[in-house]
Amino acid sequence: MQALTRTALIVSSLLYSFQAFAGTPTDLGAKIAAQGTTRGVAPCMSCHGPDGAGMAAAGYPRIAGMDAGYMAKQLRDYQAGTRNNPVMMPMAKNLTDEEISAVAGYYAAMPIPPVSAEPPAEPVARTAKDLIEWGDWTGRGLAACSQCHAPNGNGIGSAFPGISGQHAAYLKAQLQAWKAGTRANDPLGLMKAAADRLTDAEIDALSAYYAAQPAAAPVPAENPPTAVADGVQVAAGEVHSGEVPQHGAPPAGRAPADDGYFSSPSRDELPEGPFGESIRRGQAIFENTNADPASGKYVGNDQTCGNCHLDAGRLAGSAPLWAAWVAYPAYRSKNQKVNTYIERIQGCFTYSMNARASAAGAPPAADSETMVSLVAYSYWLAKGAPTGDDTMPGRGYPRLKETESGFDPQRGALVYAAKCAVCHGENGAGVVQAEGRTLFPPLWGAESYNWGAGMHRIDTAAAFIKHNMPLGLPDSLSDQEAWDVAAYMNSHERPQDPRHEGDLKATTEQFHGGKFDFYGKRKTAENRLLGEQPAVK
Amino acid sequence: MQALTRTALIVSSLLYSFQAFAGTPTDLGAKIAAQGTTRGVAPCMSCHGPDGAGMAAAGYPRIAGMDAGYMAKQLRDYQAGTRNNPVMMPMAKNLTDEEISAVAGYYAAMPIPPVSAEPPAEPVARTAKDLIEWGDWTGRGLAACSQCHAPNGNGIGSAFPGISGQHAAYLKAQLQAWKAGTRANDPLGLMKAAADRLTDAEIDALSAYYAAQPAAAPVPAENPPTAVADGVQVAAGEVHSGEVPQHGAPPAGRAPADDGYFSSPSRDELPEGPFGESIRRGQAIFENTNADPASGKYVGNDQTCGNCHLDAGRLAGSAPLWAAWVAYPAYRSKNQKVNTYIERIQGCFTYSMNARASAAGAPPAADSETMVSLVAYSYWLAKGAPTGDDTMPGRGYPRLKETESGFDPQRGALVYAAKCAVCHGENGAGVVQAEGRTLFPPLWGAESYNWGAGMHRIDTAAAFIKHNMPLGLPDSLSDQEAWDVAAYMNSHERPQDPRHEGDLKATTEQFHGGKFDFYGKRKTAENRLLGEQPAVK
Repeated sequence: MQALTRTALIVSSLLYSFQAFAGTPTDLGAKIAAQGTTRGVAPCMSCHGPDGAGMAAAGYPRIAGMDAGYMAKQLRDYQAGTRNNPVMMPMAKNLTDEEISAVAGYYAAMPIPPVSAEPPAEPVARTAKDLIEWGDWTGRGLAACSQCHAPNGNGIGSAFPGISGQHAAYLKAQLQAWKAGTRANDPLGLMKAAADRLTDAEIDALSAYYAAQPAAAPVPAENPPTAVADGVQVAAGEVHSGEVPQHGAPPAGRAPADDGYFSSPSRDELPEGPFGESIRRGQAIFENTNADPASGKYVGNDQTCGNCHLDAGRLAGSAPLWAAWVAYPAYRSKNQKVNTYIERIQGCFTYSMNARASAAGAPPAADSETMVSLVAYSYWLAKGAPTGDDTMPGRGYPRLKETESGFDPQRGALVYAAKCAVCHGENGAGVVQAEGRTLFPPLWGAESYNWGAGMHRIDTAAAFIKHNMPLGLPDSLSDQEAWDVAAYMNSHERPQDPRHEGDLKATTEQFHGGKFDFYGKRKTAENRLLGEQPAVK
Repeated sequence: MQALTRTALIVSSLLYSFQAFAGTPTDLGAKIAAQGTTRGVAPCMSCHGPDGAGMAAAGYPRIAGMDAGYMAKQLRDYQAGTRNNPVMMPMAKNLTDEEISAVAGYYAAMPIPPVSAEPPAEPVARTAKDLIEWGDWTGRGLAACSQCHAPNGNGIGSAFPGISGQHAAYLKAQLQAWKAGTRANDPLGLMKAAADRLTDAEIDALSAYYAAQPAAAPVPAENPPTAVADGVQVAAGEVHSGEVPQHGAPPAGRAPADDGYFSSPSRDELPEGPFGESIRRGQAIFENTNADPASGKYVGNDQTCGNCHLDAGRLAGSAPLWAAWVAYPAYRSKNQKVNTYIERIQGCFTYSMNARASAAGAPPAADSETMVSLVAYSYWLAKGAPTGDDTMPGRGYPRLKETESGFDPQRGALVYAAKCAVCHGENGAGVVQAEGRTLFPPLWGAESYNWGAGMHRIDTAAAFIKHNMPLGLPDSLSDQEAWDVAAYMNSHERPQDPRHEGDLKATTEQFHGGKFDFYGKRKTAENRLLGEQPAVK
């Protein structure tokens, strides 16, 4: 049955390629695929198959339905020698830019062959699933695969290829190549950082697992720019050319667990029964706050809790929940009262998740399923932590020392383009999946945190960025880069501060007086003051 | 000036005593006071003064304005030899019952002389105030003086004499006599238990401090019986004569701090600033829940948090807050959901404090001052306790093993009369001060906990009673006595279960099925089933 299906598929794909060859604009791509070129390029299908499915045993990758931009970049990298492969390099060198675009477009448009690999058995599958869903951020600085390749493994745009339904042998070879340094054409060195932290057994598990997952089109790389509440288009900032300060090589990554940080119970230790279920719900809501049916109605933008609290609230230096739990209730100068932990979380919804613009129009009530689950989850993460200890190492975002050069959004724009835009997009709109799950959060505009959120402060953002960004490469930016890019991010317009009552000057003086804050003080590209928008109704 | 005042007072008191002597019904008392009797009783005023003020230096007590019942009992105890004093014993032996009543009544009606002693300086005053307000329950099983002598030290009824404005030398001599065992006519041995735990320096501090406090009339011993919501008079239970099981001598008292229990920070360690203020408010509300202006509006009876959680929520074995704090959120079968700590406290208000009958008609909201303060206070008491540890020694009320004889309210009635009524009153109505502060909580009737409170369960009540009652004599009842008296207490009518919707059978089956529960099953003296009353609106 499976053999029959496969035969049928080859036939239909052959028909497809011949149809494509017969006079459509994709002629050139189809022709190269089927016949190669007269300048020594062999037909692609000789290795990748007429249906673009590759050859599992030989480790030739499936290319049908892969992102065109990703494939074109790989061909250009083979040309340039920044990706190394003895078969592909000579052929790529003989392709023109036009031919690269054509053949990449041709295969991108080809139907994705169904997956034929068998998924691995437990416990191998579990190993893979844990790495895909959670990584091992806290243990060894390893980001979850799903963070960049999307939860379904089908990738995001041209930077992060689909890996679901790819042959295991190919995936394994690539991971080993990243690890060995023989492949190094990844954005920011992210795959090197990831592969370095994987054991051989984990590489095998991931390769086998992804090979058996159904492939589909990738998530679009970038959302359209979002408007803020008053309809003002997101400002591009005041970007001028400038020199990005120099900094040393990125560190190899940190392993916070070795640094004496508190250790939450592992996900395997979750209790059974209704209490465990509540914790699980809390974890799910934390990672999917805007899209979860229960919590989504309190979220007025495209943010999740996990966007600011990495590793689902576990990561030291990323405002971990275990440190927050034992430090509340506490007095907060922000609202000049003692806040319970629940009130603190309500503050996150009000500001970072812009609850006023949500369906509910308010943060979740203390006894709502959303709140109780988040409380249960936080409590569980703090299991064993000493009550009342507000000095736990790794608490909050460790403050970043000011630099002599201060902070400058113009310098920051260059850092942003080099280090941030690959995920958050040139327009800062981030990536939100079709189902609403936020993969890379919007950094400004209507779908980002509002002007009351702590992250709008440049010092807070600089601290967060330095210790956590780029994802999987923490502490790789220089202090100066972190300050500048934080200033750039927060020089854009975002949703109104819900405490604003119509008088920008009054709001600025009452809530935004500090030097780390552009609200009411700096102008956007449209020559309007940041925050110059109506009060939230 | 002080000498002049005193002289004036003596004169006015003499006038008063002569007036009393001149033909009123108190003639007999006045006559004995001024002249003694022909059977060898010396005039009282020869030692206690014409104004009943006693003599500070000689250690003769002030008796003017003391409770008549208390004084009469002392005279009878001198007669019987159960109170020992070489001067008083022979005179008391020569008084008739009528004379005792007359002279006690005479002095009770006499105006209280103003206090002339100077209060001690710090830190002596602080030592005394701490013992008066808090005792050292957790440290050495020492109940607060104010618990029985009332916060103002003016005593309660005839069992607990006023000690404010009493001479220091007299107070000191009495405390030393309790300690040495040379005075032993106290109810249940309560003063022996207290004095045993006091150092000589503390006895001096307390004596000096109380001597300088203004004296006033005592709090009435017993409140009138209260009706439950439907107007049904509180049932007297089904009391029959029966034999109270034997038990050994009361233990000397426990010192939980020696038993490896968790230790909360001392009251001296309270932080300054608004957070410390919130904790202080929480402590005050905890002890005065029904009367505090903030929390009182959520309380529909005469209960305080501290009535069920002794030593203001610190005491091991008395459902201490520090153990509860680290054990929530948690799933509760009672409401079949995961409850946050705040929801758990709201449950206390709903049931133990009968919030439906309160001004607010509901428990305090999660962000109310009352709730935030109680949360801050709980959190502070748990400082250093490991988050998530729901097995801390001393948590809850340690379960009491069932006895072979089961539990029987008829046997319990005798225990109650012997061991409980002195504080809670024959009618179970407890003692509520004029300002509303509950000293001894009502145990049944409209002002007690309702049928949804955990304490209505006989096993829960037996455990509480065994480990905590009588106040200052924990673990002094036998297991059998604790079971029986718990059954007696919970065989009386109390406010309706707020979950009741009008069908007693349905409520009984759904919420009151167990064998430790008389609701809907046992009849009151009026031959009505317990719980047979309308639903709460």
